Amino acid sequence: MAIPIPSRLLFIDGKWTEPIKKKRLPIVNPATEEIIGDIPAATAEDVEIAVDAARRALARNRGRDWASASGAYRANYLRAIATKITERKSELAKLEAIDCGKPLEEAAWDIDDVAACFEYYADLAEGLDSKQKAPVSLPMETFKSHVLREPIGVVGLITPWNYPLLMGTWKVAPALAAGCTAILKPSELASITCLELAQVCMEVGLPPGVLNILTGLGPEAGAPLASHPHVDKIAFTGSTATGIKVMTAAAQIVKPVTLELGGKSPILVFEDVDIDKAAEWALFGCFWTNGQICSATSRLLVHVATILAKRPLRQSTTNSRKNKFKGTLSLLKIGWTSRQGLLATYSESSFKLY
Amino acid sequence: MAIPIPSRLLFIDGKWTEPIKKKRLPIVNPATEEIIGDIPAATAEDVEIAVDAARRALARNRGRDWASASGAYRANYLRAIATKITERKSELAKLEAIDCGKPLEEAAWDIDDVAACFEYYADLAEGLDSKQKAPVSLPMETFKSHVLREPIGVVGLITPWNYPLLMGTWKVAPALAAGCTAILKPSELASITCLELAQVCMEVGLPPGVLNILTGLGPEAGAPLASHPHVDKIAFTGSTATGIKVMTAAAQIVKPVTLELGGKSPILVFEDVDIDKAAEWALFGCFWTNGQICSATSRLLVHVATILAKRPLRQSTTNSRKNKFKGTLSLLKIGWTSRQGLLATYSESSFKLY
Repeated sequence: MAIPIPSRLLFIDGKWTEPIKKKRLPIVNPATEEIIGDIPAATAEDVEIAVDAARRALARNRGRDWASASGAYRANYLRAIATKITERKSELAKLEAIDCGKPLEEAAWDIDDVAACFEYYADLAEGLDSKQKAPVSLPMETFKSHVLREPIGVVGLITPWNYPLLMGTWKVAPALAAGCTAILKPSELASITCLELAQVCMEVGLPPGVLNILTGLGPEAGAPLASHPHVDKIAFTGSTATGIKVMTAAAQIVKPVTLELGGKSPILVFEDVDIDKAAEWALFGCFWTNGQICSATSRLLVHVATILAKRPLRQSTTNSRKNKFKGTLSLLKIGWTSRQGLLATYSESSFKLY
Repeated sequence: MAIPIPSRLLFIDGKWTEPIKKKRLPIVNPATEEIIGDIPAATAEDVEIAVDAARRALARNRGRDWASASGAYRANYLRAIATKITERKSELAKLEAIDCGKPLEEAAWDIDDVAACFEYYADLAEGLDSKQKAPVSLPMETFKSHVLREPIGVVGLITPWNYPLLMGTWKVAPALAAGCTAILKPSELASITCLELAQVCMEVGLPPGVLNILTGLGPEAGAPLASHPHVDKIAFTGSTATGIKVMTAAAQIVKPVTLELGGKSPILVFEDVDIDKAAEWALFGCFWTNGQICSATSRLLVHVATILAKRPLRQSTTNSRKNKFKGTLSLLKIGWTSRQGLLATYSESSFKLY
């Protein structure tokens, strides 16, 4: 699965832009720990330029070029992006797999979801037009009232490494559909495909500044974006610790935030269970997308009767459950398997959970 | 409009409860600046007890007594509260007028709105039952999925002085309809009617701890409520400065907040205007509810042609506009007028706006 890694710059105001400080970060293949390329590293100076570009894009031609254009107009761009993503699916899936360490097949599904997500929000953008200026009935005929749906403004989108392009899309597509302009800051651990989204935006002729993509470190690029006074909203998916910092910064200017943080999802095993299926599903839930998922079934709550009934009493019930899961775990392939395009980064510590 | 001011304690766990520190705050009639009574002043110690009572009410009988009871069950209490409020309308309106300084007629409309708001959320609580466990179609028949709507938990509700009981109701009624339990902290400048809501809750037999009402100062009672780790959400209406503090405290444990802060609403005067009507509506918008309202039309954006066309050019156009508004302002009655029950606190500084 050899794949050339494109060398990119920051995407600001519709153009590839060198970071002011000219810094770059290595791209590490998590399956082999080899350095396979590098990405540009934005700092506060680049954030300033990107926010300025996004604000200008919002106001350009008194908003008529994007923010107050019809939803149908913006939907055209979202559909064009979806089409280009689908055309490049095979390449994007390989880049995603090599960058974040998930199996190629799952990465390919992710890219399908990326295209579907842009299509989904294109539909919603179109649907917006018929909802605009909906009249509100008032008790006095002298007055007229209607509802106008307006974009919130410039949004900062900070996303994690486990679904790099898909998480970016979940934030970019609705923001663009609504008429916002945006700055996307993907995780520095997996930014390749988000930079390719920039290339796609250039190819479809997205108006300059509508979407800006800044790769770089959290403290150097994410933090100045989160606290920027000209960013009207922050959407962040990642750790609870960083989420607290993002919300604290936002509070200082009462900036709205959307946070998706952490996750510790239980799988509940009841007494009427098929123990083999329970083991299979628990592992699927936990090791799907190479175990890096907020909804990973990383807690097992098992009805005590299940364990007692299904296993000889002379065995330690705890050990028997552990053995069952360990046996199933051994079916998982670990590491780089170029033939199947399977790569995974399950470490020994993952096994210690059981 | 002589009206006896009830002397009350804090309302915690369904009972009148003396503040741990036994502190009380004076009630000032803003029209006369006379002290007309006092309210209990809660501190962090009372907040602890109230939050504990709310948490116990949430979990009582495994939630079946409130949080996971049917919406129809909770609606019964909301309707009973609405009925009692309507029965006491005349008294409550007088208490509201004397406490926050708004004209009696407007206070009476507020109390009608309070009852209507409890009725409105009673309807929504009932409507909730048919929406529960709505199935979600999934691509695999092996799995079943449905949506269960659950209350967020214990909510802290902090409200301002301009619509004392109505603002409290806008937060209390939806929280109770959803199955939350709540702690209401009204403004120390106008708490009388919210303490009467406590009396109403006792009379209708609201389960203990479902609604707790703590009067007191912001820093002493509001702040410990906003930052309490066992409060699951804060809803606050008030100043931007306090809103920033509330959101900063909430961020430390990623607690959701709803904030309604400040307000600086313009009235737009276009060139085809009737200048007398514009003056009348601008004043109505600004001095409604004795000028203490977030939507006060405290900015006038006037088309320059309006001023030039309607006034002789030899006059300063700015002065002529000022004179028109000053003339209309002089129609407003200021101060305590017991015959009409009109009282208002417009100060000289209000006139200086024009």
